[in-house]
Amino acid sequence: MALTTTEFDTIAAISTPPGEGGIAIVRISGEDAMKVITAIYRGKNLNQVASHTINYGHIIDPANNNETVDEVMVSVMRAPNTYTKEDVIEINCHGGIVATNRILQIVLSNGARMANPGEFTERAFLNGRIDLSQSEAVMDLIEAKTDQSMKAALNQLDGNLSHLIRNLRQDILDVLANVEVNIDYPEYDDAETMTTKLLLDKAREVRARIQQLLKTAKQGKVLRDGLATAIVGRPNVGKSSILNHLLHEDKAIVTNVPGTTRDVLEEYVNVSGVPLKLIDTAGIRETDDQVEKIGVERSRKSINSADLVLLVLNSSEPLTAEDRELLKLTSDTKRIVILNKTDLTTKIELDVVRKLVGAQNIISTSAMQADGLQSLEQRIAKLFFEEGIQNSQSNVMVTNARHISLLNQADSALNDVINGIDSGMPVDLVQIDMTRCWELLGEITGDSYNDELLDQLFSQFCLGK
Amino acid sequence: MALTTTEFDTIAAISTPPGEGGIAIVRISGEDAMKVITAIYRGKNLNQVASHTINYGHIIDPANNNETVDEVMVSVMRAPNTYTKEDVIEINCHGGIVATNRILQIVLSNGARMANPGEFTERAFLNGRIDLSQSEAVMDLIEAKTDQSMKAALNQLDGNLSHLIRNLRQDILDVLANVEVNIDYPEYDDAETMTTKLLLDKAREVRARIQQLLKTAKQGKVLRDGLATAIVGRPNVGKSSILNHLLHEDKAIVTNVPGTTRDVLEEYVNVSGVPLKLIDTAGIRETDDQVEKIGVERSRKSINSADLVLLVLNSSEPLTAEDRELLKLTSDTKRIVILNKTDLTTKIELDVVRKLVGAQNIISTSAMQADGLQSLEQRIAKLFFEEGIQNSQSNVMVTNARHISLLNQADSALNDVINGIDSGMPVDLVQIDMTRCWELLGEITGDSYNDELLDQLFSQFCLGK
Repeated sequence: MALTTTEFDTIAAISTPPGEGGIAIVRISGEDAMKVITAIYRGKNLNQVASHTINYGHIIDPANNNETVDEVMVSVMRAPNTYTKEDVIEINCHGGIVATNRILQIVLSNGARMANPGEFTERAFLNGRIDLSQSEAVMDLIEAKTDQSMKAALNQLDGNLSHLIRNLRQDILDVLANVEVNIDYPEYDDAETMTTKLLLDKAREVRARIQQLLKTAKQGKVLRDGLATAIVGRPNVGKSSILNHLLHEDKAIVTNVPGTTRDVLEEYVNVSGVPLKLIDTAGIRETDDQVEKIGVERSRKSINSADLVLLVLNSSEPLTAEDRELLKLTSDTKRIVILNKTDLTTKIELDVVRKLVGAQNIISTSAMQADGLQSLEQRIAKLFFEEGIQNSQSNVMVTNARHISLLNQADSALNDVINGIDSGMPVDLVQIDMTRCWELLGEITGDSYNDELLDQLFSQFCLGK
Repeated sequence: MALTTTEFDTIAAISTPPGEGGIAIVRISGEDAMKVITAIYRGKNLNQVASHTINYGHIIDPANNNETVDEVMVSVMRAPNTYTKEDVIEINCHGGIVATNRILQIVLSNGARMANPGEFTERAFLNGRIDLSQSEAVMDLIEAKTDQSMKAALNQLDGNLSHLIRNLRQDILDVLANVEVNIDYPEYDDAETMTTKLLLDKAREVRARIQQLLKTAKQGKVLRDGLATAIVGRPNVGKSSILNHLLHEDKAIVTNVPGTTRDVLEEYVNVSGVPLKLIDTAGIRETDDQVEKIGVERSRKSINSADLVLLVLNSSEPLTAEDRELLKLTSDTKRIVILNKTDLTTKIELDVVRKLVGAQNIISTSAMQADGLQSLEQRIAKLFFEEGIQNSQSNVMVTNARHISLLNQADSALNDVINGIDSGMPVDLVQIDMTRCWELLGEITGDSYNDELLDQLFSQFCLGK
């Protein structure tokens, strides 16, 4: 795709998270980056400093009698060895919302325009430093909820997925070239038969490799997006104690949903490398220490949006109607039943519960005595990584819904190739499906892309990246 | 005060605001900073790079088979031209909560210890790069709510307050030296009289300058801390429209109270340079478009914690009992009465309101037609900056409660000097009060300080600064 020149004007944004902190960075990228900074900086002659140096000085406002705005360190990084492959300036200032915004405004008044979300990374892609799946890995790395998800993102950023996909595409291209030759010179003996065989073999081989990749997708997606987990149970069975246990030891990561300023918080917790995305923890907290008010209706909602349900029962009391209702509601969901309060005499109908959920899905705990909670964590981790987490950095894992969808489509195109040959379809028709597979794989790496895809993809990035 | 060596071990912290962003920075400072980074960085030989350079590479985890943890840019800044005057390393990584924390953990496992809040700035102070009032200005700059408050902080960071205080101290010291001589050599004629006169003159002169400074304190404190403002009025008079007007045009700054993860938000709005800290906006929003439920009790609470009350009345209706109650409740507070809904026929008893609050404190608006709202903003600004905001950077403004308190104590010490002389107290007793004044002023700049003061002061800083 041809690049239009407007894509290379000079852009700027605040690259550090919003809020008060020790350091904030205003980043500028583009041909005019040096021009912009020299207009608003007082200190050394930045045109004469070496690339990749840090320079002390002040930001001034030319529109306001060159008033001093902040004391700063300016990083000068000249093309092409930069994040975007363009000239990049980073103004490292004193932090603070007002001061940082003021500097950004001055930058924007002096030749840069406000960057779109992800636009620095988009340029890294458009300028050929990284491909599309690597760009996506940048955002995954930022949003990673556990070490394991970070590793998967870093692996993808390193280009391991890209490398694998490119190899597949090259294989397909080779066979397609061969088919082309055979179509152009049909006078050779057995050309048709040979071509068909070649296509069939390659389709089967590539398909096996794609299906292997897709096998990592379930784990991969959990690593990237977290496992939506609901803690349910009737009042006073110990839900909030169990929640508190999961949240303790700095394992909780509270995330603000981008674009909102209040209230909508996502709470993640790292359980042996599995990022649990906890559902409705406010509901559980609200009722802490009071007579709990969570009704079956609210539980039903949580259960419906959960990938995993932790159903807490009081083992010191016989099952109530509400317990039975919750057992029924969760019967179609992946669940772990927690028999809490094992410090008291067991009165629950163990046989009934075992029969309903299977002994392997039951964990006994005493949240009061912090007993059994580690087994709970291990069980959660085992449930999702039964074949062990892929630890080695060379193991490629598919984590991204877009990639999974494209791999599924490529798989289906290969299926069409195989079926087509089996049913004796002409080679030039089969060839179309093979080409489609090649194109679909190319969308993963961005070897083929369109503006709409880029817009959609980078708009999910944070500002300043 | 002597410095103990433990104050100079190597410290590290995340210096960017918490949360997801394009860039995060892990900062290391201290003698071992180079040792720490070289143990965990793979890339160039950082011992051989020039100071103030940015170096591409990877962070590895020596405890985990040198596993690659992130792709980073490492800023190497050697002592003494750094923030702390020590060797400073900044690891500029991909942002993200998990990745950044992982890097910090690796740094901490390889020779650095976790920095306390404000400890980098504390070192800048202890190592003599900035004084105490400049250190405080760093935090004020980060927390500045408007351009004006930022300017005041920057002015203080530039050392203008320090300079003024040091001059006063020098003057006091000169006269004290002179007194000392006269006490030691009392045989000179008129020594006692001359000394007394000298002390009295100087005490009066310094006191006048301190009182001048204290005059700026009211404005200064508002600039620094914001003006606690309550919007009150009975249901449906237009409070939320007026709130929305104040909040629009990106003027609102929402701040998370440090140390909390949710719910407690402070909302500031910039009105012509005055940072209003809005009280109980949730209360106003909650009732938006519904029949409002804010009772007099809730209003009373807001009024009690407010420096300024905006009391909204409906000008198209006669005063109600609730209006009169609110007028009474606010009679001891600085207030502006807003007669809203001027697009409708006036039915309110204007003469009564004027008599109660004074015509100069009344503003007529039509929030519906966006009428009069600008006058409201001007009135608010005028109320607090009647003598005009001190714009010039050379004008020193006292903004900090600690400084104000010390200046008041110094003022009182000088008063004691003057009264002592007036009542014929011996010079060596008067001299004690003068010395006390000198010490009190020294606490502003940190020329005299103790550990407790430092602990208390820097603990209010954010982590990583």
